[in-house]
Amino acid sequence: MATPFRVQRIVEFSDTDVAGIVHFARFFCFMEAAEHAFWRSLGLSVKMDWEGEHLGFPRVSANCDYLRPAKFEDELTIEVSVAKVGSKSVSFSFRVLKDEVELALGQISTVCCRVRPGLPLESCVIPDAIREKLVNP
Amino acid sequence: MATPFRVQRIVEFSDTDVAGIVHFARFFCFMEAAEHAFWRSLGLSVKMDWEGEHLGFPRVSANCDYLRPAKFEDELTIEVSVAKVGSKSVSFSFRVLKDEVELALGQISTVCCRVRPGLPLESCVIPDAIREKLVNP
Amino acid sequence: MATPFRVQRIVEFSDTDVAGIVHFARFFCFMEAAEHAFWRSLGLSVKMDWEGEHLGFPRVSANCDYLRPAKFEDELTIEVSVAKVGSKSVSFSFRVLKDEVELALGQISTVCCRVRPGLPLESCVIPDAIREKLVNP
Amino acid sequence: MATPFRVQRIVEFSDTDVAGIVHFARFFCFMEAAEHAFWRSLGLSVKMDWEGEHLGFPRVSANCDYLRPAKFEDELTIEVSVAKVGSKSVSFSFRVLKDEVELALGQISTVCCRVRPGLPLESCVIPDAIREKLVNP
Repeated sequence: MATPFRVQRIVEFSDTDVAGIVHFARFFCFMEAAEHAFWRSLGLSVKMDWEGEHLGFPRVSANCDYLRPAKFEDELTIEVSVAKVGSKSVSFSFRVLKDEVELALGQISTVCCRVRPGLPLESCVIPDAIREKLVNP
Repeated sequence: MATPFRVQRIVEFSDTDVAGIVHFARFFCFMEAAEHAFWRSLGLSVKMDWEGEHLGFPRVSANCDYLRPAKFEDELTIEVSVAKVGSKSVSFSFRVLKDEVELALGQISTVCCRVRPGLPLESCVIPDAIREKLVNP
Repeated sequence: MATPFRVQRIVEFSDTDVAGIVHFARFFCFMEAAEHAFWRSLGLSVKMDWEGEHLGFPRVSANCDYLRPAKFEDELTIEVSVAKVGSKSVSFSFRVLKDEVELALGQISTVCCRVRPGLPLESCVIPDAIREKLVNP
Repeated sequence: MATPFRVQRIVEFSDTDVAGIVHFARFFCFMEAAEHAFWRSLGLSVKMDWEGEHLGFPRVSANCDYLRPAKFEDELTIEVSVAKVGSKSVSFSFRVLKDEVELALGQISTVCCRVRPGLPLESCVIPDAIREKLVNP
């Protein structure tokens, strides 16, 4: 199993809420941003031109378990792993850590789609070269 | 089974993203806001003074399945049901609808906590009078 | 002078920050959402098809003075006035009120633009029928 | 005049809107986050304990001029300068740059306040040691 991909981020004021901690919905943005950094680390993007088509990976499900709160100016590590690559779908697992202690665990599932102006999204098979990189990052 | 509680909201520009649809993390804010309106409909608040203590209901898990996208200025209905009331926890189920078509289905679980300045959150048993209202809204 | 257009909104948990009040950047979203409701009240949209073209009104400047804080579950009124209609630009003034007390005062200036897929935004003269409605709402 | 303080950030998906660019309100979060990094670079925090008191710097005004749009995955530089230090207030100026081209120019004014649980914010004179660092960063 590959070493998980890791990014760091510091909690910003606008991430917090009146409970004095990071708002629970922001963890999904943290996980998504880490996933997108992972795509970039592969020389790809979650939103890219590919052989004359525009590909995107809209989210079809997302979940998160909150174990411990994160606070303003906490330095977080977000760990990304590819959980599963299907023919048209990719799922990612995430751990949000502070000083190596788990604060949150999440998953996000996405589907490969063709994006064309004015048309609804249409799911499509993940191109082989992209699948290859996701499977062996 | 009680009729689900319903709120309406219109999709705002700041809810959308470059994919031209509502950002997936915003659905969690929509569901949370609907839940909080449900608390208010019971004469309560998710953040309230209760017999000399300050109670809150931090989220311990959240998930969402995305079935169809929502767009700028869509008029959404968010439906809230109490899924389960434990001794210290409450879980809610949500349906996000447009013209009675399901766009997203979600769950949020929360734990009743005492909130005291400068101290960590401490879970506690849901007071009977609150439990009563949640069970028979 | 026309009566200002008014919308109501309740402060949501995700609008707040660790200072216990509405995050200052959220006031810009509140003002924008009120402006967009104003467009709809005229039978228009800030993002609309018009005689075969797609028009948008990107923001070129925004400012806000914060007089008093807003808190979770506060019921706010946001008042929108058309401050100035130029040949290509429209500026709006806003008052954010709670119980008729001013919490914030802001302005947002926008420019009428043609939006075409794959091309940069191009400013254009506001169509007469739109200008008419903005000037005499 | 001191060299401005600079931070880098990459535009995230959740920063964008349906117009395909960074939502105008997010620039205020970018500027604020840069300002807070500047405080940290001085060994301070915008939210800190100081001689037995808790100090904060709530925003009293904010403005931004938008010159050019920012897009998903753009690498931005945000430049922070101390514009003015009053007896109780501090104002910051910001430039948001991409490849050294200005995308946005902004200002944020803040007031030094004592923060005490359950009491309204009360403005106070900026402690000398803090003022010193702000004036000669």
